[in-house]
Amino acid sequence: MRISDGEFDDLDFDAGIDDSIDQLDQFWMKRALLQAVAAQQLDEVPVGAIIVRDGRVIAEAHNGREQLRDPTAHAEMIAITQAAASLGDWRLERCTLYVTLEPCPMCAGAILLSRIPRVVFGASDPKAGAVVSLYRLLNDSRLNHCADVVGGVLGRDCGELLTRFFAAKRALGKK
Amino acid sequence: MRISDGEFDDLDFDAGIDDSIDQLDQFWMKRALLQAVAAQQLDEVPVGAIIVRDGRVIAEAHNGREQLRDPTAHAEMIAITQAAASLGDWRLERCTLYVTLEPCPMCAGAILLSRIPRVVFGASDPKAGAVVSLYRLLNDSRLNHCADVVGGVLGRDCGELLTRFFAAKRALGKK
Repeated sequence: MRISDGEFDDLDFDAGIDDSIDQLDQFWMKRALLQAVAAQQLDEVPVGAIIVRDGRVIAEAHNGREQLRDPTAHAEMIAITQAAASLGDWRLERCTLYVTLEPCPMCAGAILLSRIPRVVFGASDPKAGAVVSLYRLLNDSRLNHCADVVGGVLGRDCGELLTRFFAAKRALGKK
Repeated sequence: MRISDGEFDDLDFDAGIDDSIDQLDQFWMKRALLQAVAAQQLDEVPVGAIIVRDGRVIAEAHNGREQLRDPTAHAEMIAITQAAASLGDWRLERCTLYVTLEPCPMCAGAILLSRIPRVVFGASDPKAGAVVSLYRLLNDSRLNHCADVVGGVLGRDCGELLTRFFAAKRALGKK
């Protein structure tokens, strides 16, 4: 996985609007990936998240379940709480959440409750994903909020980080 | 709604096992209701939760979204974080969560992540409930945990507290 700053250089701001959005999403996802790497260095499941509003990062966090001994300490949850504190409001309007792994039911629920209008994720999670895999919680018209969703942004990089982490854990377990 | 201490006197511990479980559930739900009343006094949506392990309350909390300006500050979430801190472990084994309102997707997801084995709730929530109403997240064999669920315990009392709260809010809005 390559997440060096140098990679940001290949963003082409002369491209069309859709291409620019794609490239901006990749740009921010790289920053979320840096958080995932930080989690890995603490022996936490490597998932990172950032929240961007009006072109500015207002929250960034990584999974901290083991360090904090808190089952609710997923990257998205910490970032949402941070963003609400930053804005002084629980409504995270005009925000985009970038997260390296498809949100679980808890995090998808928190996204709905915080009214985040747009979510971009990296790898999908066939075992617990609640956005496109097991459930589509962010697109349920019965609930009082929906969010636009883009998946698979730098999905291979985000997924490989997780795959390697769990492979290393299993290898340790077999020793 | 009656939640005075005097009401605890009518628990009959000579009753059969099932009756005793019912009565214990009502006993603890009354304590969760006291938390809901505390929320109401702070002008928060009145929902309360407690977590009991081995006959002892290890966490009790109420909804605090407005006071804390945090969209994740539901009663169950705060109680789960408290309980994990109390045990020094994110796995809330042998715990029962009592909550006055059917958990939403976020809170049901947190229940799964914390491995809580038993959930007792009061009123159901047809608009956002994720345990029996819109989803059955606590009984999905694809996920890596399920929980036993009992609903409707003091459901009328729990529901009336919410109905009156929102009716008062609407009446204020019309003035």
